[in-house]
Amino acid sequence: MGWMADETALERNEANFVPLTPLSFLARAGDVFGPETAVVYRNTRRTYAVYRDRVSRLASALARRGVSPGDVVATLLPNVPAQAEAHFGIPAAGAVLNTINTRLDTDTVSYIFGHGEAKIALVDTALLPLAEAAIAEMEGPGPEIIEVADPEAGFPATGRHTEYEALLAEGDPSQPWIMPKDEWESLALNYTSGTTGRPKGVVYHHRGAYLLAMGTAVTWSVGIRPVYLTIVPLFHCNGWCHTWMMPAVGGTLVCCRDVTAKNIYDAIADEGVTHLGGAPIVLNSIINAKPGDRRDFDHVVEVFTAGAPPPAATLAAIEPLGFRVTQVYGLTETYGHVTECLWRAEWDGVPQAERAAIKARTGILMPFMEDISVHDDKGVPVPRDGKTLGEIAIRGNAVMKGYYKNPKATAEAFKGGFFRSGDIAFQHEDGYMKITDRAKDIIISGGENVSSVEVEGALMHHPAVSLCAVVAKPDEKWGEVPCAFVELKEGGEATEDELIAFVRERLAGFKTPKRVVFQELPKTSTGKVQKFELRVLAKTL
Amino acid sequence: MGWMADETALERNEANFVPLTPLSFLARAGDVFGPETAVVYRNTRRTYAVYRDRVSRLASALARRGVSPGDVVATLLPNVPAQAEAHFGIPAAGAVLNTINTRLDTDTVSYIFGHGEAKIALVDTALLPLAEAAIAEMEGPGPEIIEVADPEAGFPATGRHTEYEALLAEGDPSQPWIMPKDEWESLALNYTSGTTGRPKGVVYHHRGAYLLAMGTAVTWSVGIRPVYLTIVPLFHCNGWCHTWMMPAVGGTLVCCRDVTAKNIYDAIADEGVTHLGGAPIVLNSIINAKPGDRRDFDHVVEVFTAGAPPPAATLAAIEPLGFRVTQVYGLTETYGHVTECLWRAEWDGVPQAERAAIKARTGILMPFMEDISVHDDKGVPVPRDGKTLGEIAIRGNAVMKGYYKNPKATAEAFKGGFFRSGDIAFQHEDGYMKITDRAKDIIISGGENVSSVEVEGALMHHPAVSLCAVVAKPDEKWGEVPCAFVELKEGGEATEDELIAFVRERLAGFKTPKRVVFQELPKTSTGKVQKFELRVLAKTL
Ligand SMILES: Nc1ncnc2c1ncn2[C@@H]1O[C@H](COP(=O)(O)OP(=O)(O)OP(=O)(O)O)[C@@H](O)[C@H]1O
Ligand SMILES: Nc1ncnc2c1ncn2[C@@H]1O[C@H](COP(=O)(O)OP(=O)(O)OP(=O)(O)O)[C@@H](O)[C@H]1O
Ligand SMILES: [Mg+2]
Ligand SMILES: [Mg+2]
Repeated sequence: MGWMADETALERNEANFVPLTPLSFLARAGDVFGPETAVVYRNTRRTYAVYRDRVSRLASALARRGVSPGDVVATLLPNVPAQAEAHFGIPAAGAVLNTINTRLDTDTVSYIFGHGEAKIALVDTALLPLAEAAIAEMEGPGPEIIEVADPEAGFPATGRHTEYEALLAEGDPSQPWIMPKDEWESLALNYTSGTTGRPKGVVYHHRGAYLLAMGTAVTWSVGIRPVYLTIVPLFHCNGWCHTWMMPAVGGTLVCCRDVTAKNIYDAIADEGVTHLGGAPIVLNSIINAKPGDRRDFDHVVEVFTAGAPPPAATLAAIEPLGFRVTQVYGLTETYGHVTECLWRAEWDGVPQAERAAIKARTGILMPFMEDISVHDDKGVPVPRDGKTLGEIAIRGNAVMKGYYKNPKATAEAFKGGFFRSGDIAFQHEDGYMKITDRAKDIIISGGENVSSVEVEGALMHHPAVSLCAVVAKPDEKWGEVPCAFVELKEGGEATEDELIAFVRERLAGFKTPKRVVFQELPKTSTGKVQKFELRVLAKTL
Repeated sequence: MGWMADETALERNEANFVPLTPLSFLARAGDVFGPETAVVYRNTRRTYAVYRDRVSRLASALARRGVSPGDVVATLLPNVPAQAEAHFGIPAAGAVLNTINTRLDTDTVSYIFGHGEAKIALVDTALLPLAEAAIAEMEGPGPEIIEVADPEAGFPATGRHTEYEALLAEGDPSQPWIMPKDEWESLALNYTSGTTGRPKGVVYHHRGAYLLAMGTAVTWSVGIRPVYLTIVPLFHCNGWCHTWMMPAVGGTLVCCRDVTAKNIYDAIADEGVTHLGGAPIVLNSIINAKPGDRRDFDHVVEVFTAGAPPPAATLAAIEPLGFRVTQVYGLTETYGHVTECLWRAEWDGVPQAERAAIKARTGILMPFMEDISVHDDKGVPVPRDGKTLGEIAIRGNAVMKGYYKNPKATAEAFKGGFFRSGDIAFQHEDGYMKITDRAKDIIISGGENVSSVEVEGALMHHPAVSLCAVVAKPDEKWGEVPCAFVELKEGGEATEDELIAFVRERLAGFKTPKRVVFQELPKTSTGKVQKFELRVLAKTL
C-alpha cells in the first residue's frame, strides 16, 4: 500500500477532498454554460442558468414541505423537463430520487410507494389516476402528490393537487444545496424492470453516478455541447445517467414525451440531436418508419443500444440511415451500461455482414469499470475461446449499493466478490463477450443448450419478421424445444412452415423452433419482451 | 445527508467499490486496445499489450530489488518511453513515483534524493553525471541507480549500472499489480519548479490523478484514440497527468526527447499528433520556427497552454498555423491544469483581436473541480466586476494531499478550507478569471498596483520582441518602478526609448517601464522566466 514513510498532515481536508456527486456538474454548468441551452421540450427552451435556478427552487420547496435528508421523493413522469429537474433538485435537498416506471399497474406502484416510503411524489397529470389509485390501495399513509401538468401535450392541471410550478414558486433560488458529506450516500432508488418477478429496489450512491457519467462521456466521445434525445425513460436506470452527464459537457437535453419514429426524426432534424440511446426495438421503429415520418439530416447520430441483444440484421439496416450504433450492456443494478462493443481499428475494413455480427457482440468493460468477465459456476473466468458459457460477473464503481430492505437478495447478488448478473455469455479471444441468454431463458433440448438469442437472431434475418422471441416449450421427448413468437412487418407475409425451414437452413436441427406463433409480443415499459408470459403461453400450445 | 431509513447491507464491498487509480486505465487498455499503438519514440512503436506487459515487468523487478509499498522510486529522465512506463510500473509496485526535473543543479537533486528518500532512481545515460554527483554529495545512502540508455539518441549504456532493459528482464510479466486499497494512498511526489525558492515536495494520491485524467478527457474533447505529443516534461506535474489519461482513451503517446520546433512539426506531420500541451514559450517557438523546420499538415492540433500567462499576441499568431489553443491554469499543487478558458458559443463571431484577448483569460474551473474563485484577504469572493483583485482559491479533488514532511507549509497553503495559490487575479462578470500577477511579482509604484503581466502583454505586441519579463526595481521616489528585460527576435531591432514609448501609448504612465534591458532571460526547466533572478539584477541597475 502506497503510504509513504511520513504521512503527517497529508490527510483529507475541505480543500482537497470533495465527495463525488453529479450535483457538482450542474453547479458548475450554471456558470460555465450559463447562457447556453440546457433543456428543450416543445416550445420550452431553458438555459443552464435557469435550469440551475429551478433546481434550487425545487430543493428548497421540498425542504420547506418537510423533506429531510435521506427521505425518498418519488416521480411518476414521462421524459419531461420536471423529470430532469427532479434528478438534481431532489438530491440537492439531500433526498433520494425514486423514479417510478410509468407503465406499471396500480398494484406494483402501490407496492413501490409502500416499500420506498416516498414522502412526496411528482406525478404527471396523465398519470394522476394511477398514482391516486395506488395510494388508495396502500395501508399506511401514501406520498403527498405534486401534480406536473403538461397543457401543451393536452394535460392541463386538474386542480386536485399543488401544481409543480406553484411548488417551485414556494422555493428560494438562493438556498444552498445540501451536498453529500460522503459520496456513498444514497442518490437514487430504482426498482428493476420486473422482467422476472416482483421488482427489487436498487440503491445508487452519488459516487457511482458521477463516475459512470464521466466515464461514458469519455468513451462515447460526446465532446462538448452534444444534443441528447431522451428516448430511454429517465425512470429506467435514470436514463442510463445521461441526464446527470449533460451539464458536465454543456449538452442540451431534448425531452421526448412520446417515443415515436416521427418524434425521433423530427428531433434529429429540428434540434440537431447528436446522441441518443434506446432498446433494439427503438432501432426497429426507426428502420421501419413510414416514409412520411422520416426526415433528412446530414450528420451522423451516435446511438447506444442496450436492454436486449440487438439482432445483427437490425444493426445492418440502421447504419445506412445515418446512425452509428454501439451496443452497450448493463442492468438496473449497474446504473445502466457497463460494457460497450467498442469498435477496433483493425475491423475497419470488414464487409458489412461481418461488421453487423461484430456489433452484435455484448462488448467489453467501459473505462470506469474494473473487471467484467464470464465466470464458471466456481467463480473462475472461462477460457476466451468463443464458446465456453458462463455467467457475466461484474466489479466496479458503477455497481449498486444493494437491494433496499433486502439483505438476502443483496448477499446473493454479491456472492464471491462480484455482482452476478444472471446473464449467460461466452468470451471471444480478444475479451469481447457475447450474451447468449439470460440464465432463466436458456432452452435445454435433449440435453443440449439452445440460446434463445441465437434462434431469434436467425429469425430476424427473414425480411418479413419485425420482432420475435423464442422460449422453451415443454416436450415429452426432448424435455424442452424452442418455440417462436413472431410479429410480422406491416405488409410482411410468412407462414409457420416457411419460417421453420428458414431457420433450419441456418442452424442445427435441435435449435430450430418446433412451433411458430404469430402475435403481438407482451413488452415491459422499457421495450423488452416479457418472456415469462410467453413461457406460460407456450406451455398451453 | 442522504442516508435512507434503512441502510442495512448497503455498505461497500469488493464488487461495488474499487479505489480510483489510473492503473485501472492501463489494466483495461491492455485488453481493449491490446493490438493498437500505445507508445511511439523514434523507431520504437509498442502496442498496449506490450506496454502493459513491460509495466508488469517493471513493477515485478522493482519488488524483487526490495521496493516495498510506500517506498519512493525516482526518475531523472527526459520524455522517453521508460518515463511513461515508470508512471504505471512504479505505482503498480505500490511505490511512489518521484519524477525529478532534469535541468536542476546537483545540489537540488541531492536535496530531493535526501528529502524524498528514493530507494531506486531510473536515470537517463545523459544525466548519469548529475545523478552520480548528487548522490556523492549526500550524507546518507543514496538511491540505487538504474541506467536508462538511449543509443538511438546517441547515449549508449555506460555499463556503470544495471541497464533498464536488463531490469525489465528480471521482472515477471504475470505478477499481479499492487492496486491501492485506499484511493488516498500516495501515487507521486513532485517537487515544485522552484520559481520562488527551495522546491517543496507535493504529494499526489491515486484518486486525484484518476479524476483529473477523466475530467480532462471530457472537457478537452480528446475522443477515442487521440495522438498526444509529450512536450510538457513528464517530471512537471506528471506531464499534467496526460500519460495517465492516454490508456483510458486508447490514445498514442508520442515521446519527444528534445523539444524543438522541428521535432514538433515532424511529429504532427509524421505521427498525426492531435493534441499537445506546452508553456507559452513553446507556442512562440512554433510561431517563430525557421521555414525549413516547418511542415504542412491538414488537421487542427488542439493545444493546452499553461505555466505562465500567454500573451494575446502569441495566441493571435499561432491560430492561423493550424493550432487551436485553450489556455489552462494550474500548479504543481493541483496535478496540473484546473481551470480552462473554455470557448463560449456566444463568442463565435468576435473579431480576431478580441478573440485573442478572450483566449488570454485564465478561465474557469474544469469539470472535475468544485470551486475556484478569487478571494479577498478575508476569504470572501471578490465581486465579479472585471477589476477587483484577489487571490485564486481552489477546492476540489485535484488538489494535493500536502507538502511532504512540511506540515507548516501545508497548513498555510490550506488556510480557510481552500488551497491558496498565491496568484493574483480578478473575475469577469461571467466568472472567467484573469491572472494579473503572482502575489510576489506585483509591482507597487506610488501606492498603485502594477501588474507585471499587463506590462509584458503590451510589450509583446511590439513586432521585434520575442520574450520579455517585467519586475519591480526599487525607486526612491515611487517605492518601486517597472523594469523590463527583453529578448529580441532574430533580426528584430528596437531601442530602450522606442519600447518605453511603445508601451506608453498603450498603458498609463505609472505602468510604463522606466528601464528596458536587452538580454537572454533566465528560465526554469519548464520554460518559465525566473523573475527572482531578474529582481536581484534590477536592484543593481
Ligand atoms: N446489450 C444487451 N444484450 C443482451 N441483453 C441485455 C443487454 N443489455 C441489457 N440486457 C438484458 O437486460 C437485463 C437488465 O435489464 P433491467 O435491469 O432493466 O431489468 P430486467 O433484468 O429486465 O428486470 P428484472 O431484473 O426485474 O427481472 C440484463 O440482465 C440483460 O439480460
Ligand atoms: N495560465 C496561466 N496563466 C498565468 N500563470 C500561470 C498559468 N498557469 C500557471 N501559471 C503560473 O505557474 C504557477 C504554477 O507553476 P508550478 O507549480 O509549475 O511552479 P512554480 O509555482 O513556478 O514554482 P514554485 O512553487 O516552486 O515557486 C502558478 O502559480 C502560476 O503563477
Ligand atoms: Mg435483472
Ligand atoms: Mg508555486
